[in-house]
Amino acid sequence: MDIQRWAVKIEYDGTGLVGWQRQTSGLSVQQILEEAAYGLCNQKHHVPSITAGRTDSGVHALGQVAHLDFPAHLPLTAKKICDGLNYYMKPHAVSILQAGQVNLEWSARFTAIQRKYLYVILNRHSRPALNTNYVWHVRKPLDVQKMHNAAQRLLGLHDFTSYRATACQANSPIRMLDKFDIYQIEDRIHFECEARSFLHHQVRNMVGTLKMIGDGYWPEKQAYTILQGKDRKLAGITAPATGLFLKEIVYPKDPFTT
Amino acid sequence: MDIQRWAVKIEYDGTGLVGWQRQTSGLSVQQILEEAAYGLCNQKHHVPSITAGRTDSGVHALGQVAHLDFPAHLPLTAKKICDGLNYYMKPHAVSILQAGQVNLEWSARFTAIQRKYLYVILNRHSRPALNTNYVWHVRKPLDVQKMHNAAQRLLGLHDFTSYRATACQANSPIRMLDKFDIYQIEDRIHFECEARSFLHHQVRNMVGTLKMIGDGYWPEKQAYTILQGKDRKLAGITAPATGLFLKEIVYPKDPFTT
Repeated sequence: MDIQRWAVKIEYDGTGLVGWQRQTSGLSVQQILEEAAYGLCNQKHHVPSITAGRTDSGVHALGQVAHLDFPAHLPLTAKKICDGLNYYMKPHAVSILQAGQVNLEWSARFTAIQRKYLYVILNRHSRPALNTNYVWHVRKPLDVQKMHNAAQRLLGLHDFTSYRATACQANSPIRMLDKFDIYQIEDRIHFECEARSFLHHQVRNMVGTLKMIGDGYWPEKQAYTILQGKDRKLAGITAPATGLFLKEIVYPKDPFTT
Repeated sequence: MDIQRWAVKIEYDGTGLVGWQRQTSGLSVQQILEEAAYGLCNQKHHVPSITAGRTDSGVHALGQVAHLDFPAHLPLTAKKICDGLNYYMKPHAVSILQAGQVNLEWSARFTAIQRKYLYVILNRHSRPALNTNYVWHVRKPLDVQKMHNAAQRLLGLHDFTSYRATACQANSPIRMLDKFDIYQIEDRIHFECEARSFLHHQVRNMVGTLKMIGDGYWPEKQAYTILQGKDRKLAGITAPATGLFLKEIVYPKDPFTT
């Protein structure tokens, strides 16, 4: 069947969802999106999707990107796709921000050249009343400068075995980490992380280890020592999903500019 | 009975609550707080509270202040009050950020010299998936500069009858508006408003009118024309409660510094 391919930029609240990928155990972003696309085709065509980043259960997205293959004969426009998908996805906490047609060689996953994640720690004594699902609450004061310095030692091309989930399915543990900036805004600590691609749980495992440096449990150099050890058992805890946001996916040419 | 008076700084998510004040119609912040204080006294003493700002249903607080009168004989400290109240308020979305002892002449309401509110509009086409309860979603693009200019005409000492709720119980409609700054951060528009005190719905009514200037329905001068008319029927809609945050209460001397 002839198809037309559309890229979509998606915002979602991961709370209560099983993550991006379809699971029998619960509702996923992929299922919500594909069922909405099925609705947009008057329930005549199933529309498969491919995503740039398969986020885990509880992880949020500010700018996830996926592509959808619709039958070629449908009279679609970017506006019809945005408004139509948002209509059918109600009341789920998933929203299409932009849509753009791409050629059939273009892939949300393989054409991407950079992924940007944001992790947020709320660093104060009192528990949060606002944004409860959007932060990791850490009571003990963290040394931001020490965490930032430790993070700089992880930049560049490395074997990230120590920071990947044991269930990670990637062929190689080698990744190039381009940026890892840590800074404070009032009582929130932001971790900004950029790479062409990440291993499963890599950001959350790195944040979990840095937190243990920030609270004084480990010395600053420990993040790099753990990296060199190439053993998952050496690293710290996996930071909770609630604080993680897939912020942006970068392509050689922005698929959403017309 | 001899009492000891404590000031507390409170963060809360107004979603699903009937507002600050006790109501028979549902759960209020005041009820949650006073029941926690009752728990802290081993359920032997009722602890009345007075607040700086009686927020409406759905309105949030980043830094509400109230004072609580505990029996004098209880061995209380700032830490015991913070941790104890937060323990008893679980799982409600209300959190004590700080506590400080004050003398019996001090009042959270009457000693306050300034109230600061923040209103947030999400100004974009697509509906929000994140922070749904923390913004007013306006699809039509708003002219921020025009709204800011219009707001400057409301500064100073005026009769704010046009911008007060008809149910407002204040004796006088005269208020001094000290600051009204409007600026954009990505797709969010922030309205920052400061005064010694506000009338009922004053911030939300001003924001509702400015929104109608921002979207071109009214000219820039309309906000001032409405003010001069001294008639509530002249003003625009009341902006929804979801976008409003009580940000800070200012006192001559910060009751939370030790």
